[in-house]
Parts: sequence; structure tokens; C-alpha cells
Amino acid sequence: MSSYGGIDLGGTKIQAAVIDEQNKVLGQARRPTPTVGGPKDVAKEMAETLREAAQAAKLEPAALKGIGVGSPGVIEGGNVSTARNLPGWEGTFGLAKALKSALGVGGISVKIGNDVQVATDAELELGAGRPYESLIGVFWGTGVGAGLILDGKPWLGQGGAGEIGHMVVKMNGARCTCGRRGCVEAYAGRAAMEIQARKLHEKGRHTDLFKLMKEHDRTRLTSGIWERALAHEDKLATELIERAIGALGAGIASAVNLLDVPAVIIGGGLGVRLGDPYAKRIASAMQPHLFADDRPPDVHVAKLGDLGGAIGAALLVRVEA
Amino acid sequence: MSSYGGIDLGGTKIQAAVIDEQNKVLGQARRPTPTVGGPKDVAKEMAETLREAAQAAKLEPAALKGIGVGSPGVIEGGNVSTARNLPGWEGTFGLAKALKSALGVGGISVKIGNDVQVATDAELELGAGRPYESLIGVFWGTGVGAGLILDGKPWLGQGGAGEIGHMVVKMNGARCTCGRRGCVEAYAGRAAMEIQARKLHEKGRHTDLFKLMKEHDRTRLTSGIWERALAHEDKLATELIERAIGALGAGIASAVNLLDVPAVIIGGGLGVRLGDPYAKRIASAMQPHLFADDRPPDVHVAKLGDLGGAIGAALLVRVEA
Repeated sequence: MSSYGGIDLGGTKIQAAVIDEQNKVLGQARRPTPTVGGPKDVAKEMAETLREAAQAAKLEPAALKGIGVGSPGVIEGGNVSTARNLPGWEGTFGLAKALKSALGVGGISVKIGNDVQVATDAELELGAGRPYESLIGVFWGTGVGAGLILDGKPWLGQGGAGEIGHMVVKMNGARCTCGRRGCVEAYAGRAAMEIQARKLHEKGRHTDLFKLMKEHDRTRLTSGIWERALAHEDKLATELIERAIGALGAGIASAVNLLDVPAVIIGGGLGVRLGDPYAKRIASAMQPHLFADDRPPDVHVAKLGDLGGAIGAALLVRVEA
Repeated sequence: MSSYGGIDLGGTKIQAAVIDEQNKVLGQARRPTPTVGGPKDVAKEMAETLREAAQAAKLEPAALKGIGVGSPGVIEGGNVSTARNLPGWEGTFGLAKALKSALGVGGISVKIGNDVQVATDAELELGAGRPYESLIGVFWGTGVGAGLILDGKPWLGQGGAGEIGHMVVKMNGARCTCGRRGCVEAYAGRAAMEIQARKLHEKGRHTDLFKLMKEHDRTRLTSGIWERALAHEDKLATELIERAIGALGAGIASAVNLLDVPAVIIGGGLGVRLGDPYAKRIASAMQPHLFADDRPPDVHVAKLGDLGGAIGAALLVRVEA
């Protein structure tokens, strides 16, 4: 049976998976995304992560039928440009070529897709989206992005659709990491939330967030750190998560008012980690903003969890094979 | 050559048109939408307006091959439910049947479509949307609604898509006429703007808006009254229009960030009346919120102007014929 590799390139972590023709996960691996250096260093780390996943599947990378990548940024063929939340990736980088070279697998097809779109496609084909023809996949992590499925097909617009994180929910509101004001991501993106937590902590607000971060040997406030702080009823963490949920509720409801889809899938690092109780809270936060409030969309957590991105990336080449 | 009737049922006016097979307008008429009474009174007025348009085309209503209607509210077959901004239309009303009966044209096909969607379809087929495969038609009038065209086809969702007026641009913001807070329409809908103008005027703010309204024998602040007040540099009118443009800019940019379409068409009573200079100002107000700000969508005024809705309604039956 043929095997396929998938790599999900996130702002915080690189997740790799190897699947077979029946979408069974044969092996997986995860590494933190480099925070310094540039695209070359990121590509090297991606190759290492995939090598580990192949090893877990008892395979050589060269034995894979193809490798798919879910990447942020603007994707044109094997090139990725302006990948936000990744170090030194302002320009254009030949990611497919660099990956092949780092893995020593010149002959294997490498296909790159949009990170949130491939994760949404995976949820549609194999996960929580299976019952629906149309849906919005919302990925709540370092940033906030969306994949749109309309009548069974991905909607990409001119290539840049799905920027739900940059829908405006508060004119003249909080500064976003993108430089604009009042975006969903300015309140709900983990990067923006960390900046805000640090600012308030430095101003004297008590929080265990940064203590937990050090205890767990992290350099960032990961989804796990947020989860722990919430479990400890850390007041600042709770406040910032509630603020995030409010913005997600307004933004997702706005998207539903515009598109009238029957389902919303909540994925991403924070979405998956915080899981069902928080998906329910997002649904509650949407409710007061929904125009057709007598028939709110179903809201589910991404069923493939953290692996959805990597599986969706592998589907890029499995479909092609 | 066959002729077709179209009626655009708006919150402020009823516009009717009669077109031929080549979409040439043979006659048209306009009447104010009743502000009191109920759906029956509205249907009677719609019939009268169409009769006038047919008269102008030197035709009897019975000579029309079909009659199309663009209506607000929820449309199921010939029935219209919960049509906002129309008097006493909270329930379900058999509009097609009532129209046929009022016109005495039992044998003619009457087809009802969503008001903003038929106007958007008309712009796509005959107006400013012709060069594009995908676009958002934004109708700025009593309310604010949108019609979506994605890859050449209307996107209706589960029947309620396009509620751009109820996208949230300011969490906990101004009260909307829909009862919610911070919607685009709370700032930009003519109904909400009139309420706000009246409130501020009663609190002592100077404005000529209501004086102009009386002078021109109107019971509402129509688009024409707003246009006159702006021409007179009425300070309150200018302020409220600028506030509306700010909200439209944030809301439309949010929709573009989500859908990444190449074009936005601005129609509706205010959109058409204020025309190109204001469409340019809406484009400017969008710019700071656009995620792909290096390639903003084209923004055009609806080319069919005030007649687009009625022409689009007629296309419902012309296509069918």
C-alpha cells in the first residue's frame, strides 16, 4: 500500500504525519517552529519532522509517494511568500525545492497548499465536516484563519480568501499584529494575546501565565500554557480568553451572516486544546450577533484535532496520486 | 417581441419596470412604499406601480409574459415572510397570489426573488459587474444588504446569505434597527441614520435635514434629502454620512477579507443617489482594513442605478420564459 507524507507548518509548531491510502495515520511527529533564522532553517526543521514521522511509520522518506505541505503565506506552485508568524519570511522562498533537497528525495512530488484550507478540507473529507456541503473552518491559534467550503468545494477567492482573523469587529479597536486595528485576531490570536498579557503583567497585573511558561520550559505562551492557566483559574488568562471568545463570536457570526452556512468547525492550537466546552462558549458568543438567530449553525471542534493540518496536507498528494 | 414586468419592493419606494427580450426598458414607474397598513396594502400599491409602468410602455398588464418581484424578507415560492422595513409584515403573506389578483392577470407567471440578489444579478448581467466572475453587490438604502456572486453564480447559502448590514463592526456599539448592537446597518442604514439624526436634533443639535424633509413634502429622510443636506454642507448630515461610510468601509473590507472577490458594486437608494464620489470614499474607508491592501477590489457604483432592482426582478421571468 502507498504512503503519503503531510507537513503542517504552523506559527508555533511543525506537525508531520504519514498516512496510507485509507487515510490511516502510520506515524507522526511534532517539533517547535524555529523562532529565529529564516525560511531555510524552517525548511530544514520541516524535513527533520517529516523524517521522524516516517521513522515512526517504519519508512524511509524516499519511500513516500508524495509529500504535501500546509503553509501560511502566499503560495504559488512550490514557492511561499510573506508567511506571517514565521521568522524572516517576508520574501519568496522555494519551499518545495528546499524540502526535497533536505530530505534527499528529488523524485518525489511535493505539493503546497494553504494551511487552513488543507485542514478544512481534511475536516470536510474525514472529520467533523463530513455531514455538511458548506462550512467555515476556523483555526484559532497563533493567528486566526478560516477555510471556506461552499457547496462541497473550497472557496479561495483570488487565492487569499478566509482571512476571518482580519475581519473588523471593533472599529478603532485593539492593535492587531498585522498593524491594523480592531481585527478578530487582535483579540483572539495567541500572538496578540501574549503581547497583551505581557503588557498587563508588566504594568503590575498578577498572572501565572509566564511562571507556567518557564516551568514548562516554553519560550511562548502555548495553547497548553493557556489551558493550564485557565485550569488554575488565573484571572488575567480567563479575562483574555473571554475577550478572545467575544471577538471570535462577533467575527464568526458576521461571516455566517454573510455566507449563511450550516456549520462552523473550530480547530487550531487553542481551538483543539480547549475543546468542546470552549466551542460551546464560542457558539454562545455568536448567538447575539446572528441575524438568523432561530437557526444558528452547528459548531463543532475539529475532529482530527492537531493532526488535521498534516493529514489535510497529505491529502494534497494522495488525491493527486 | 415579448415584454416582462419587474417590481422592486423597497423599504422606501416601489419601483416597477417593463423590459423587452433585449432588456430594453419600455416603461417604468415609482411610488412610495406604504408606511402604514399591511402586506395587502403593499401588494395593492405594487400592482398599481406595475400598471403605471405598463401604461408607460403602452401595454396592458395582461400582455406581459411574466412578472418578477425583488422582495426583502424570507421568500418561499410565492410567499414572503418577515419582511423588515415593511408595515405589518411580520408573518407570511401570499404575495404572488395577491399581485395576480390585484392586477387581474391570473394566468401570468409571477416569480419572487430576494431584492438585493436580483439587483446584483442585474448588475452582473447588464451593469457594472459585467467584467467580473465574482463580486459583492452592496445595497445602501433604508437597510444595508448584499448580493454575492461567486464564480458567476449567486451564493444564497441556506437562503439567507448576504446580510452584510448585520456584520458586526463595533462590538457593544450602536443599537441597530434589528435590535442587535454594532451592526454595519446601525451606522449606515438610512432608517438608523434617521433615528440618530432625530435624536441628536431633539437634543438641540442644529440640522436642516427635517426642514428639507418638510419643504420637499417627504415623511422620511429620503436619499434625496440626505443629498440636499450634504450639498448645503449641513454639519450633522455630513457627520452621520461620514460615520456611515466608516462602518461600510469596515464591513465591506471584512467581507472582502473573507471572500477575496475582485469587485464591489455599490447600489441602493443612497449608494446610487450619492454616486461616484461617495463610492470612492467608501473605497478609501475600506483600504485601512483590507488584508491584501496591495490589491484592493474595484469599487463601482451600480450602473443600472435605481432601476437595477426592477430590471433584475424582470430577469427572473425573462430567464424563465
